[in-house]
Amino acid sequence: MQLSFTAQQIAHVLEGTVEGDPNVAVSNFSKIEEGKRGTLTFLANPKYTHYIYDTEASIVLVNSDFVAEKPVNATLVRVQNAYASLAVLLDMVEKAKPQKVGIEAMSYIADTATLGEKTYVGAFAYIGGYSSIGNNTKIYPQVYIGEGCKIGENVILYPGVKIYAGCEIGNNCIIHAGAVIGSDGFGFAPEDGVYKKIPQMGIVIIEDDVEIGANTTIDRAVMDATIIRKGVKLDNLIQVAHNVEIGSNTVMAAQVGISGSTKIGESCVIGGQVGFGGHITIGNKASIGAQSGIISNIKEGAQIIGAPAIPVKDFFRSSVVFPKLPDMYRQMAQLEKEIKELKDKLNK
Amino acid sequence: MQLSFTAQQIAHVLEGTVEGDPNVAVSNFSKIEEGKRGTLTFLANPKYTHYIYDTEASIVLVNSDFVAEKPVNATLVRVQNAYASLAVLLDMVEKAKPQKVGIEAMSYIADTATLGEKTYVGAFAYIGGYSSIGNNTKIYPQVYIGEGCKIGENVILYPGVKIYAGCEIGNNCIIHAGAVIGSDGFGFAPEDGVYKKIPQMGIVIIEDDVEIGANTTIDRAVMDATIIRKGVKLDNLIQVAHNVEIGSNTVMAAQVGISGSTKIGESCVIGGQVGFGGHITIGNKASIGAQSGIISNIKEGAQIIGAPAIPVKDFFRSSVVFPKLPDMYRQMAQLEKEIKELKDKLNK
Amino acid sequence: MQLSFTAQQIAHVLEGTVEGDPNVAVSNFSKIEEGKRGTLTFLANPKYTHYIYDTEASIVLVNSDFVAEKPVNATLVRVQNAYASLAVLLDMVEKAKPQKVGIEAMSYIADTATLGEKTYVGAFAYIGGYSSIGNNTKIYPQVYIGEGCKIGENVILYPGVKIYAGCEIGNNCIIHAGAVIGSDGFGFAPEDGVYKKIPQMGIVIIEDDVEIGANTTIDRAVMDATIIRKGVKLDNLIQVAHNVEIGSNTVMAAQVGISGSTKIGESCVIGGQVGFGGHITIGNKASIGAQSGIISNIKEGAQIIGAPAIPVKDFFRSSVVFPKLPDMYRQMAQLEKEIKELKDKLNK
Repeated sequence: MQLSFTAQQIAHVLEGTVEGDPNVAVSNFSKIEEGKRGTLTFLANPKYTHYIYDTEASIVLVNSDFVAEKPVNATLVRVQNAYASLAVLLDMVEKAKPQKVGIEAMSYIADTATLGEKTYVGAFAYIGGYSSIGNNTKIYPQVYIGEGCKIGENVILYPGVKIYAGCEIGNNCIIHAGAVIGSDGFGFAPEDGVYKKIPQMGIVIIEDDVEIGANTTIDRAVMDATIIRKGVKLDNLIQVAHNVEIGSNTVMAAQVGISGSTKIGESCVIGGQVGFGGHITIGNKASIGAQSGIISNIKEGAQIIGAPAIPVKDFFRSSVVFPKLPDMYRQMAQLEKEIKELKDKLNK
Repeated sequence: MQLSFTAQQIAHVLEGTVEGDPNVAVSNFSKIEEGKRGTLTFLANPKYTHYIYDTEASIVLVNSDFVAEKPVNATLVRVQNAYASLAVLLDMVEKAKPQKVGIEAMSYIADTATLGEKTYVGAFAYIGGYSSIGNNTKIYPQVYIGEGCKIGENVILYPGVKIYAGCEIGNNCIIHAGAVIGSDGFGFAPEDGVYKKIPQMGIVIIEDDVEIGANTTIDRAVMDATIIRKGVKLDNLIQVAHNVEIGSNTVMAAQVGISGSTKIGESCVIGGQVGFGGHITIGNKASIGAQSGIISNIKEGAQIIGAPAIPVKDFFRSSVVFPKLPDMYRQMAQLEKEIKELKDKLNK
Repeated sequence: MQLSFTAQQIAHVLEGTVEGDPNVAVSNFSKIEEGKRGTLTFLANPKYTHYIYDTEASIVLVNSDFVAEKPVNATLVRVQNAYASLAVLLDMVEKAKPQKVGIEAMSYIADTATLGEKTYVGAFAYIGGYSSIGNNTKIYPQVYIGEGCKIGENVILYPGVKIYAGCEIGNNCIIHAGAVIGSDGFGFAPEDGVYKKIPQMGIVIIEDDVEIGANTTIDRAVMDATIIRKGVKLDNLIQVAHNVEIGSNTVMAAQVGISGSTKIGESCVIGGQVGFGGHITIGNKASIGAQSGIISNIKEGAQIIGAPAIPVKDFFRSSVVFPKLPDMYRQMAQLEKEIKELKDKLNK
């Protein structure tokens, strides 16, 4: 956004309407609470509404149903969904950035590996034998791709991503720095007090449009594949064990851990630090609160939290009572005593 | 398993018995619920028993005491322990794979470092001065080994493993991608409101037959050593703080965190996301459920879960009551009221 | 500490007093429970007091108010703060070690990058265009620094650290192996059942004197900056989401997760595995126990634990009652029955 755009131009792109000066121009983005003149900001979270009356940002994207309760200095651009429209603008700017292309010296590309067109391979990146890299894919420095991997088109592998042999990454995927794809699953058979390793012969399959966070780890299957379906978004430092399957368009916040062979449904929303036991099934559209512990199958559309997880309302109602437990305990002893006294009186 | 083996041959290797066609042949592995003709699968977890009657796999490894309740199409190979026998087969296949040997160009090996026979050193790997690498050890690309490290024989260091100066790794260890061994312990002395770093002068010692998961971190000791004993298996994304000691043959699931100077016993089984406080001692053979919080010493053989952890049965019994707390709270007020009424009546 | 120092010399450096033989000499450090002749140890944690009567260490640093209850063989050096004094000694030894300087072959430094004096750049390190590196800064092998980064003076970036484009690191910072600074925040706008990426246009700013643990991840802001203030110390495997701000001199144990736009105050102490919700504010000097779940604003100086977090005393009192819940539940039913019987009697 080095160039400058007017409210009118922005409204045109977003199919929105201008309220205020259509000729005011912006050349950068800002947060509403820190907005400066010449920047565009947005209002999506109602918690931030009060900032709109004081922001110095020149343009604010707002939802079409926004009702100002006080005068607003900034020019408003009303759109159906302010956050999604912001994304469109950010995306336009992002795409206008110069794109890395070409192969830097000091990279290692096996003779039998194949590269598509307009790929970028950074220095110290390693591409193993018989691996294929799709068109327009960017492999940053220090990435490791083992033998026989298939990497799709328009993929970005950020610095230091490690992909073990045989794994497959779909198109339009983004994998952030330090993520590990295809490490051995945690499989050991106890035998006379020691643990014997079960070789992990499967792979990891990541479908199209998946984003994987920094330092997240996804283990290869014992046999067959650990599968991350189309459109899944995983945050940082998540653990996905062997033979897990995550359904399409499911999102998970950071530090979630999923034990082996568990199947997560489609379009689920999983909070941070949730832990899933092994060999369980989570229905589609389940919403699971942060830090939950999930040890049994969860139905489609369930909204749960806690460890073990229960319906969200129940959890918070019981959490309110939890600090009163010592009082309840004492009170119960008192009631018991009083009942005994009453009994004694009556039986006299 | 590119080659094909018959049920008879497999039973012979595993010292098992064939039930069905001894001449049926397989050339790959499968999971019982997805088994295809020409593959071998296994039944170890009773939850999966019902799949055996429909699986299309040609051979199923079963425990010797398995009793079929319906006809089974597949040929059975009965063995003492189906899971362990599977491991034996997988191991045979794994070992038949071609082994990486040799030093790739664009690796850095200090003049004063020593390499054993039949080692593999990948491109962009770094081996610091005065470090020694044992025979048959594989150092994948982008691994870092600091100065003065001792790496044993038959070790595998997967891509991007980082080992700080002075650390020691025993024989037959496997360390997965992105794991960090020997980073500074988290030691700071508060002084006038700021934290002064305590230099961490110790090392990490990892004994033989240890496996360490992807992106797991093990900090060096303040002085002396953080020690991982023989046969320990650590999953991904685990944090081991300075001066911790983990006893032999203990296994830990992903995302466990262990605070400084805590000693974990031998043959313990630790679930995922468990947190241990500092300076505590866990007895041998303790079994600690996922997401537990351990803040005091734990006795040998204890079976606990929760935060703070209590015996497993107690935890689940109380968890069943937890959602009823609001009802109990209301009910208690009601009982109190009724007792008061009774008292009033009696005292009239 | 290859050289040998006497108790007298050490007391002189630390402005302490000698109790015992002022001429006894030490040449290494040890832990009090494993101390050997010729080593110096310290006593700071009262839990370890009993070891002082048996330790074979030659010198023990103790706090000035230490009162021996039995004879001590070792020579004592009394100082105001034993742990801080140990840090001073360790620091002296650390600083006496030979320092790495120079640029190793097989590193990549963009033509437009600028390096200060006495820097170290290890092999396979990558420094992107228009980045600047301050004097005396050490960049270990396999570090990645994207374009336009500013790295201060006296910084240590351990092997495999990844810093995305545009991020800024202050002076005297230490970042441990595998940490990722500036990965994309987890920002997606749901649209017709799929998640559309919100480009993350901001950066990460890390001020002076910050230490960041191994494999910790700090995401770049959507716009503006994720900020880690002066003197913050983060342990390993911590997740810091986009637009978070952590106040100066706050310390966090391993595996903490902080959701987007949350502001943590100054001089807070955060235990391991704590999770913070998004868009909340934590007051200065708050102390938050391990594994807590923080979902609303926290006042200055609060001492809390639990999920959701409550005052520490309340949490542990209620935790003692938690295992008694099944008994309480049964007892309440019993009381209800007895009250009904009493009523029936009275109403007869």
